[in-house]
Amino acid sequence: MSGASQRPGAQWPLDEVVAGLRAARQDWRERHRQHEPRGRELPSPEALDEIIQGLRGALFPLRLGPPSLRPEAEDYYIGHTLDTQLQALRQQILLELGSSAGADPAVPGLAERADEITAAFALALPDVRRLLDADVLASFDGDPAARSVDEVLLCYPGIAAMIHHRLAHRLYALGVPMLARIVAELAHSRTGIDIHPGAQIGAGLFIDHGTGVVIGETAVIGQRVRIYQAVTLGARSFPTDEQGQIRKGAPRHPVVEDDVVIYAGATILGRITLGRGSVIGGNVWLTRSIPPGSHISQANSQSQAPGEV
Amino acid sequence: MSGASQRPGAQWPLDEVVAGLRAARQDWRERHRQHEPRGRELPSPEALDEIIQGLRGALFPLRLGPPSLRPEAEDYYIGHTLDTQLQALRQQILLELGSSAGADPAVPGLAERADEITAAFALALPDVRRLLDADVLASFDGDPAARSVDEVLLCYPGIAAMIHHRLAHRLYALGVPMLARIVAELAHSRTGIDIHPGAQIGAGLFIDHGTGVVIGETAVIGQRVRIYQAVTLGARSFPTDEQGQIRKGAPRHPVVEDDVVIYAGATILGRITLGRGSVIGGNVWLTRSIPPGSHISQANSQSQAPGEV
Amino acid sequence: MSGASQRPGAQWPLDEVVAGLRAARQDWRERHRQHEPRGRELPSPEALDEIIQGLRGALFPLRLGPPSLRPEAEDYYIGHTLDTQLQALRQQILLELGSSAGADPAVPGLAERADEITAAFALALPDVRRLLDADVLASFDGDPAARSVDEVLLCYPGIAAMIHHRLAHRLYALGVPMLARIVAELAHSRTGIDIHPGAQIGAGLFIDHGTGVVIGETAVIGQRVRIYQAVTLGARSFPTDEQGQIRKGAPRHPVVEDDVVIYAGATILGRITLGRGSVIGGNVWLTRSIPPGSHISQANSQSQAPGEV
Amino acid sequence: MSGASQRPGAQWPLDEVVAGLRAARQDWRERHRQHEPRGRELPSPEALDEIIQGLRGALFPLRLGPPSLRPEAEDYYIGHTLDTQLQALRQQILLELGSSAGADPAVPGLAERADEITAAFALALPDVRRLLDADVLASFDGDPAARSVDEVLLCYPGIAAMIHHRLAHRLYALGVPMLARIVAELAHSRTGIDIHPGAQIGAGLFIDHGTGVVIGETAVIGQRVRIYQAVTLGARSFPTDEQGQIRKGAPRHPVVEDDVVIYAGATILGRITLGRGSVIGGNVWLTRSIPPGSHISQANSQSQAPGEV
Amino acid sequence: MSGASQRPGAQWPLDEVVAGLRAARQDWRERHRQHEPRGRELPSPEALDEIIQGLRGALFPLRLGPPSLRPEAEDYYIGHTLDTQLQALRQQILLELGSSAGADPAVPGLAERADEITAAFALALPDVRRLLDADVLASFDGDPAARSVDEVLLCYPGIAAMIHHRLAHRLYALGVPMLARIVAELAHSRTGIDIHPGAQIGAGLFIDHGTGVVIGETAVIGQRVRIYQAVTLGARSFPTDEQGQIRKGAPRHPVVEDDVVIYAGATILGRITLGRGSVIGGNVWLTRSIPPGSHISQANSQSQAPGEV
Amino acid sequence: MSGASQRPGAQWPLDEVVAGLRAARQDWRERHRQHEPRGRELPSPEALDEIIQGLRGALFPLRLGPPSLRPEAEDYYIGHTLDTQLQALRQQILLELGSSAGADPAVPGLAERADEITAAFALALPDVRRLLDADVLASFDGDPAARSVDEVLLCYPGIAAMIHHRLAHRLYALGVPMLARIVAELAHSRTGIDIHPGAQIGAGLFIDHGTGVVIGETAVIGQRVRIYQAVTLGARSFPTDEQGQIRKGAPRHPVVEDDVVIYAGATILGRITLGRGSVIGGNVWLTRSIPPGSHISQANSQSQAPGEV
Repeated sequence: MSGASQRPGAQWPLDEVVAGLRAARQDWRERHRQHEPRGRELPSPEALDEIIQGLRGALFPLRLGPPSLRPEAEDYYIGHTLDTQLQALRQQILLELGSSAGADPAVPGLAERADEITAAFALALPDVRRLLDADVLASFDGDPAARSVDEVLLCYPGIAAMIHHRLAHRLYALGVPMLARIVAELAHSRTGIDIHPGAQIGAGLFIDHGTGVVIGETAVIGQRVRIYQAVTLGARSFPTDEQGQIRKGAPRHPVVEDDVVIYAGATILGRITLGRGSVIGGNVWLTRSIPPGSHISQANSQSQAPGEV
Repeated sequence: MSGASQRPGAQWPLDEVVAGLRAARQDWRERHRQHEPRGRELPSPEALDEIIQGLRGALFPLRLGPPSLRPEAEDYYIGHTLDTQLQALRQQILLELGSSAGADPAVPGLAERADEITAAFALALPDVRRLLDADVLASFDGDPAARSVDEVLLCYPGIAAMIHHRLAHRLYALGVPMLARIVAELAHSRTGIDIHPGAQIGAGLFIDHGTGVVIGETAVIGQRVRIYQAVTLGARSFPTDEQGQIRKGAPRHPVVEDDVVIYAGATILGRITLGRGSVIGGNVWLTRSIPPGSHISQANSQSQAPGEV
Repeated sequence: MSGASQRPGAQWPLDEVVAGLRAARQDWRERHRQHEPRGRELPSPEALDEIIQGLRGALFPLRLGPPSLRPEAEDYYIGHTLDTQLQALRQQILLELGSSAGADPAVPGLAERADEITAAFALALPDVRRLLDADVLASFDGDPAARSVDEVLLCYPGIAAMIHHRLAHRLYALGVPMLARIVAELAHSRTGIDIHPGAQIGAGLFIDHGTGVVIGETAVIGQRVRIYQAVTLGARSFPTDEQGQIRKGAPRHPVVEDDVVIYAGATILGRITLGRGSVIGGNVWLTRSIPPGSHISQANSQSQAPGEV
Repeated sequence: MSGASQRPGAQWPLDEVVAGLRAARQDWRERHRQHEPRGRELPSPEALDEIIQGLRGALFPLRLGPPSLRPEAEDYYIGHTLDTQLQALRQQILLELGSSAGADPAVPGLAERADEITAAFALALPDVRRLLDADVLASFDGDPAARSVDEVLLCYPGIAAMIHHRLAHRLYALGVPMLARIVAELAHSRTGIDIHPGAQIGAGLFIDHGTGVVIGETAVIGQRVRIYQAVTLGARSFPTDEQGQIRKGAPRHPVVEDDVVIYAGATILGRITLGRGSVIGGNVWLTRSIPPGSHISQANSQSQAPGEV
Repeated sequence: MSGASQRPGAQWPLDEVVAGLRAARQDWRERHRQHEPRGRELPSPEALDEIIQGLRGALFPLRLGPPSLRPEAEDYYIGHTLDTQLQALRQQILLELGSSAGADPAVPGLAERADEITAAFALALPDVRRLLDADVLASFDGDPAARSVDEVLLCYPGIAAMIHHRLAHRLYALGVPMLARIVAELAHSRTGIDIHPGAQIGAGLFIDHGTGVVIGETAVIGQRVRIYQAVTLGARSFPTDEQGQIRKGAPRHPVVEDDVVIYAGATILGRITLGRGSVIGGNVWLTRSIPPGSHISQANSQSQAPGEV
Repeated sequence: MSGASQRPGAQWPLDEVVAGLRAARQDWRERHRQHEPRGRELPSPEALDEIIQGLRGALFPLRLGPPSLRPEAEDYYIGHTLDTQLQALRQQILLELGSSAGADPAVPGLAERADEITAAFALALPDVRRLLDADVLASFDGDPAARSVDEVLLCYPGIAAMIHHRLAHRLYALGVPMLARIVAELAHSRTGIDIHPGAQIGAGLFIDHGTGVVIGETAVIGQRVRIYQAVTLGARSFPTDEQGQIRKGAPRHPVVEDDVVIYAGATILGRITLGRGSVIGGNVWLTRSIPPGSHISQANSQSQAPGEV
């Protein structure tokens, strides 16, 4: 800190750098007018991180809430936390609505929509809790190393990812996809698990280890599914599209039915269906549907796979 | 912040949401009494993160300690830091003991056990430092890009993971597995390297890049082993178990002897032994033991592997 | 916190542990004199993290700068931020120069070099901004799910990694490789994308998902390249070197020409060239050059690959 | 920060200073064994400051609570805040009880007393709020410059002092005088108003400006009294006591009846009574009782003092 | 922290206390409807403290600004700081306007007024700086112990009080008296100097020591005046008003002409004039005007007072 | 926060204000070149506050140190704290030396002087502790309300002021008067007690209440003296000096011999001597020496003053 100021000669051409950056911004703005910031402020990942941390506590007060919380005070804590965090969320919703509409967020219509979205999100929280209960139980049952449900909630990256996803998915469904994406990326950064907030996931998903898991926007996952690290549920891409582009909008990620297990490193691509109760082996590369009860390993998956891609 | 309060009409049904969450908790508690929080407080990942940061400094004072530390004051800094962090650790130990026993942590017996565990952990720190010295040297020697031991300690995710693991492993061995798991997940989140605290790892492990590495609970790793990104030392699972469940307790992860090298993406599954000095190529899938000095690449590993799974 | 002090008997042999750690340090210092800290202080990852956060804001003021920034005040904010962060960076540069020279950082020559490096880095910032503009556009164009350039800048891990890389690469080129490495590891930790600061990357790189991507020190990447998760651009290693060591210095990582696409999990090893416009399929293992316009999938890559390794 | 460490020669005899301080402590401990710390930990002014700040918000939620508090969420906020702060207060009570008893705070009896004191304190809070309402109204009515009750609560040092005093007085009455004293000194430091927590003060006290006001331990003040800056309600001291010592225990400070006004700089000493509705002029020195309705100025308070004011 | 939760029985009747406080609030609201919070949010002393700290730096950048500020970057720092702090101030202005109007701060008219007040305040800052320069010089010249102007700016409580006053006075004059009062009380709390923001003070006021100084709302002070600790420039009160009330509105505090000196403890009351160049001795009690050049000591101020001083 | 930016029209003439402030600075610099900042950085009150807080803990570790400090770890804590704080102090000393010399603080001579001053200050700490022990005992003995030495150390503003003074006085004597003054003003702001760091004060001073106490630069105070609130030990000024100026340098404040008591509000002016064991009554105005054992009240100090007290 003091080094620079102790040497009076320490200099760099500040005005020149400021001017150079200004010119770069002007170039961009002239060439890419359609990409100008449409609102005055953008949603804030830092604000959303704090909101999600608060909601985690409100969902699981005695486990993820403040360390000194007494059972007698649970509802007070939850009510105060929700009120604080939902107001903060409403502000972020307003920013996204204003930004995507190119409109001034002070316009009345936006505020009403922000209220409606916030209220709908709030009312969904009890269901989110019930789904997460199922996820926690699935992790506890699925991992012989788990010693208690408390440990699962505190430690398991798969659970951290699912808490984020189940909240992000509600935001996505309610029409604030940028907030949803920010929440999903918070989990991705912390766990290495990248679940698009559009993915529909049934109760009781267990993701073990998790680093490198990618689940795409239109994936549909049933109940009690188990997924290990580095599994991709992706879109099938370059065979059918000469520019290597994913077609937008249409369902393009796998449907995984109830009770399927997918071992580490498996790559499942395209709008295919993995039938109920199937087991997909490690590193399998799969681009075709399989009937219920299938057991797929590298041998039988690859015989059909690589050559045709 | 002010947006919400500026519009008096901004509302969501707070009481209804609080009631909904209460009902969801009650449902859980009625159905899953065995999963109730057993103690009043759980260990805290945030507290353990701070403890580990403090211990890092005490282990490597002039490199990871405070920036202004003078050599004359090293022991004062170490003594003060240890006293502070060991007290904080003892409190976390007490929380786990109380939580796992379902007992009140104020009960005298727990406090004595917490003291014993803390003292044993403290006395192990010099050995932890010596093991980490070997890991640091191994990273320096193993990576031609490493310019100094300082750079290795400051930057390498593999070293960050090993500092956490060697401390977590002591906690695991001393009977506080939940603390151990929390410490391991702190490293997992930061580095993408997921080492179960039960894994036994000899001196001088070098993990390069590291993202996606998974090392299981009963893995045994010798001295001077090198492991690259996305390597799994896992349990062999679905061939022998029709529910796809890992059998608990028994040794089920690989034994890796001294001086083995395992390249990126290799998957080594089951209680097999990789003989001393073997080299496992990238993306190899291996589920059988190999003698000392073996060189395994995709070609010879896969010919035996996929079909039989 | 209070538990320990409430029990007067809570004790561990503090002096013994301090002495044990002192002995371990002395052993190290006697055996490894060449690895002694060469300067008095090392660069600080925490300080560099703050510097990079500040520079992000100065590069994209209305998107990554302070939430309340008004367009009228852009240049004031940028000028003040740059002055603050460049001074802090100069201090870190001084620490690396002092550390690597084994010299006292107060020596005049080091200060002059630190000034020169800081000024050159500052003057490069407008170009960095223009390159990042191209990266952002590439991500926006390459991902059909991207709704706005704002979303790309705020959320996409690939963009976060490229902001770090383009700054780290300048530091690397200017002769402070340890700072560059620290900056690269900050991105690696947050995104799972591990780009060595030495890698030369053209405008418009799009990295999707990103977890597990590794790009080596001498890799050369052209313009408008697309890379998916878990792709490795690595050095070819154990076939030609009986100790399994990477040879240092010489170009040893791939050259990827303009407009190449590399799908998830592909492993590209050695100083080979991927010709302009080629497409590399998922999980492909490739160790030979391919001509422009090639389409490589597992089938045709693997027939030549595994056996020969 | 870096200056010291940049010069390797920067030194002071650290061990010698540590030894000198140890010797000074040992001297003290040998000579003054009765003044040894009686408990292991002392109450913390910082902790009490935070507790009082929290209680201020719970007492006046929409004025001194969090800026975004909505009326619908008042009770949740209050309940959560009280639970948190009362637990923190209980911990401080335990420390004082343990300290004053020379006992281990883990002894059961102390914990029960701490619970009782905390509960009694909590139940007194509604009365404290009603008394403070009267104080606020008195300030609003008494100061023609006051524009709103909000301004009085936010700005007036006299109100800040009374919030602290009314809470401190309860602690004093409940048997934790050290906590009470700490709370009183927090107000003294911030406002220059020094009210001993033992003083009994009726509803509606208005202290204007306040700097230099001193109110002693056994003072008794009626309702609707007004006091200006630098007023002392002290003990009469040196005339009757040749050592200049205040006699302990017995009532020794003034009794001020309802509706008395005491102007700036007046000094009222000894267990005298100022009769209801009296007015004491600025700088008056008074050591004798006066009947109700008296008007005392410098002239008539002291036979030789100026009478023209 | 943990003490409470370690004893499961630790309880206080939380619901009862919450209900008691609710009843107390309802009583207040029923009886004192005119004192209800008129807006939804009140200005925040904490926010204003931060604003004033920021403006101090912008006024005296190389002395009270950030420690590492370089002269080349002064204007960038000032521009950025002003923009940030003036936006924060505008928000506080909006809160006072909304609060005092009983109106919704989102109403357009309020926002325009807030803009006007903010702009007028901003444009006055250069004059504030020039007045403060004179105050600083006066303190330097008036105190033989002052070693440099830097020391005066950093240390002297009188200067701290004048920085606050000159900013508060502008706010007062621009129609936001509550903000002005909050700023004045921030200085009062820190310095013991209580200057009402309405007081008109000429250039070059020197306040030495300062504790206990009180300067009233309608006081008028000329240039180059010197005031010592515990001086009161107050309203004359109880002689002419049988309720002891100050009459509101009319000028009621002293006029102090240029070059007057007032020594410690003097009390000057009422709308009297102290003629140019007069000297008022310590502890003098004065309630009548005096001609220019007067020297007043205790003896001649009060016929009976001591004349030997 | 968001209000301003939500209204695009919110504006103030930022460039104009920046220019106005620049002009004001230029005017000052042209007219007052001798008052230009002489060094590049000034000492920091915030830094000194932190240093003093640290030293308080090192002086009284079990009372003012960290709450969880165990006796076994006292010396580690002290050694580490001293090393940290003395380095920080050395940096502040360097800033004052550089500033007062107008020299570059990197000049070698200044660094050596900073080392010498730091070392001398450090070696004086054990004596400071012994003097403060006497002050604490004097407060405990002198105040019948004091319940323990712990309470005195934690709560009494007189002790807070003396800790600051005894440290500030060493800095003053060692040639860094600006640091000394900053430390003194930190205490003044917090306690209302204004002791010039030059004052020489013997062991066992007891200051009760303290608000408004002023002790001048050349005052000399013996052992076991007691002083109450609003006492001034000042310079005699205007009788002998027609400009009302204090003569610089020469002893001009009182000498107070051992065991003197000075009650509240007394004003003692000029280089007079209060003989050993004298008692000065409240509000006394004294400008002449008095022999040992004198008892002075308002009556006999001033021929016309009240004699009945």
